[in-house]
Amino acid sequence: MDTITLSPHPFSALNLNMMLVIYLIAITAEAMSGALAAGRRRMDIFGVAVIASVTALGGGTIRDVILGNYPIGWTQHPEYLYIVLSAGLITVLVARYMHHLKQIFLVLDALGLVAFSVIGCTIALGLNYTTAVVIIAGMLTGISGGVVRDVLCNQVPIVFRRELYASVSLFVCVLFLILKSFGLGENITMLVCFTGGVTFRLLAIRFHWRLPVFSYDSRWE
Amino acid sequence: MDTITLSPHPFSALNLNMMLVIYLIAITAEAMSGALAAGRRRMDIFGVAVIASVTALGGGTIRDVILGNYPIGWTQHPEYLYIVLSAGLITVLVARYMHHLKQIFLVLDALGLVAFSVIGCTIALGLNYTTAVVIIAGMLTGISGGVVRDVLCNQVPIVFRRELYASVSLFVCVLFLILKSFGLGENITMLVCFTGGVTFRLLAIRFHWRLPVFSYDSRWE
Amino acid sequence: MDTITLSPHPFSALNLNMMLVIYLIAITAEAMSGALAAGRRRMDIFGVAVIASVTALGGGTIRDVILGNYPIGWTQHPEYLYIVLSAGLITVLVARYMHHLKQIFLVLDALGLVAFSVIGCTIALGLNYTTAVVIIAGMLTGISGGVVRDVLCNQVPIVFRRELYASVSLFVCVLFLILKSFGLGENITMLVCFTGGVTFRLLAIRFHWRLPVFSYDSRWE
Repeated sequence: MDTITLSPHPFSALNLNMMLVIYLIAITAEAMSGALAAGRRRMDIFGVAVIASVTALGGGTIRDVILGNYPIGWTQHPEYLYIVLSAGLITVLVARYMHHLKQIFLVLDALGLVAFSVIGCTIALGLNYTTAVVIIAGMLTGISGGVVRDVLCNQVPIVFRRELYASVSLFVCVLFLILKSFGLGENITMLVCFTGGVTFRLLAIRFHWRLPVFSYDSRWE
Repeated sequence: MDTITLSPHPFSALNLNMMLVIYLIAITAEAMSGALAAGRRRMDIFGVAVIASVTALGGGTIRDVILGNYPIGWTQHPEYLYIVLSAGLITVLVARYMHHLKQIFLVLDALGLVAFSVIGCTIALGLNYTTAVVIIAGMLTGISGGVVRDVLCNQVPIVFRRELYASVSLFVCVLFLILKSFGLGENITMLVCFTGGVTFRLLAIRFHWRLPVFSYDSRWE
Repeated sequence: MDTITLSPHPFSALNLNMMLVIYLIAITAEAMSGALAAGRRRMDIFGVAVIASVTALGGGTIRDVILGNYPIGWTQHPEYLYIVLSAGLITVLVARYMHHLKQIFLVLDALGLVAFSVIGCTIALGLNYTTAVVIIAGMLTGISGGVVRDVLCNQVPIVFRRELYASVSLFVCVLFLILKSFGLGENITMLVCFTGGVTFRLLAIRFHWRLPVFSYDSRWE
């Protein structure tokens, strides 16, 4: 693995190999969630491939477009595309048995959410954006792939309605920036972010933590 | 207010302070309309914050991405984000009473539409795009935030079906370019655009002016 | 026609005039399909204009944004906009009689799909992207305009569910790259791509060829 370089990715300043492994797990998990969403809409194999790719790589793409961070990450790393497409198509084959893996899947998805958030923050920091934009870059990376997935599947994005997911991303981004400002080492920063973020996410699922809902009644109009 | 600079915004050539005030009113009104749309879909607080932000700042973002106008406006002005997020969350608290404010809200929204259109034109002019692209940039700024809001709320964009809204933006953009080509002073140009645009919009609402509808019957297929 | 220049388009390396004619046919056919989709949703004339434009020019726009290929094509060629808007509005007038033209329309649409795919590949090649990205650029150009059309019309994109369409684009992109790698002349490459692609598409429609569908049953969850 030593010969893999991720430039123009920002991992050079992080623990490169660990982050790469977690990133690959993250895009795989996201691609699988995309493939399942496509299957619920009875899409064909091409639709599955597109939704899997968009879910896994769309968040980073939107972040890069908004930050003006060209060339966009995956265009320099076709291997990410192959991983994502493979994950999507394998999901089709094993979908019938995936409920056995549901617990593992939720953990991988939580790992991915944290990894995406940290990566997004790191890239925006490297481009010298201000703190608010850095946090938004982290959240865009973590969440917007799933938003586009849901828009393409013609439903209101789950992330705007379900258990804490975006909140976990926000928490991780803020935590990451605080730890960095304290000058903590990379390894400790990563360890705290992943432990804190994954724990927060899994507790939110377990106990159905939700944000308050805003229900606007049209009778008020 | 004298110390506020809006570069790389184009207002240096306009009446800076007045445009800034109107711009802030505009993004506030748009954020509130986004928050109400989120409430109609029973989104949680995070969904409200996202829809409010996208409605207020999405049009300018899409314009900047299409024109290649980096860095994108709001990334250099986190204060816009704070205003938009605050407006969205305050809307949640006062939504029950907002029908009392409906008339004011419509006027603010019309002001915002004109301001967005003029700003979009000005930015595209500054980048030396041709007239057709300048007009599209104005309309994108005025309208596309609301389009993304409606897509995220899983409905056909209102602007494609309701009273004249896009037409007002088109009218303002063309008026703005004509007045500019006549070499009129900035103050008069702005005054005419705002008076004309807001009047047009309010008359359209009052008298239910609509564009003709194209209804394509599938029996014809 | 000799005085028309398409730079920064890539046609200088291709048979310029033929490609230009086919490109104009392609955006016209796409604009008409967009206008009909808008009519099925009973949009107003402005909605028709937007959906026609987005369907015809949206694919190229998304490709250029993702590749960082600025300025975006149509911003340098307002005449494309006028063609697309005219095609959309004429469609409104003749919609009632369009079923008589259905066969011709399908052929034009197939021609457009091939043209868009080849153009997308050529642009990405010119920017030195790798093969996988070149193919994706071709498919984005061919397909994503229709995807945005369907999202704005609030339906699951047809291309993810119907007869082979994306597959034709993929086939054309791969064929184009293979022929180019053999060093075949431009004219022969184009001829083979168009003949092969259009034939494939029309056979797929005629015999209802489809990709296998992935139907994920929520009982499995």
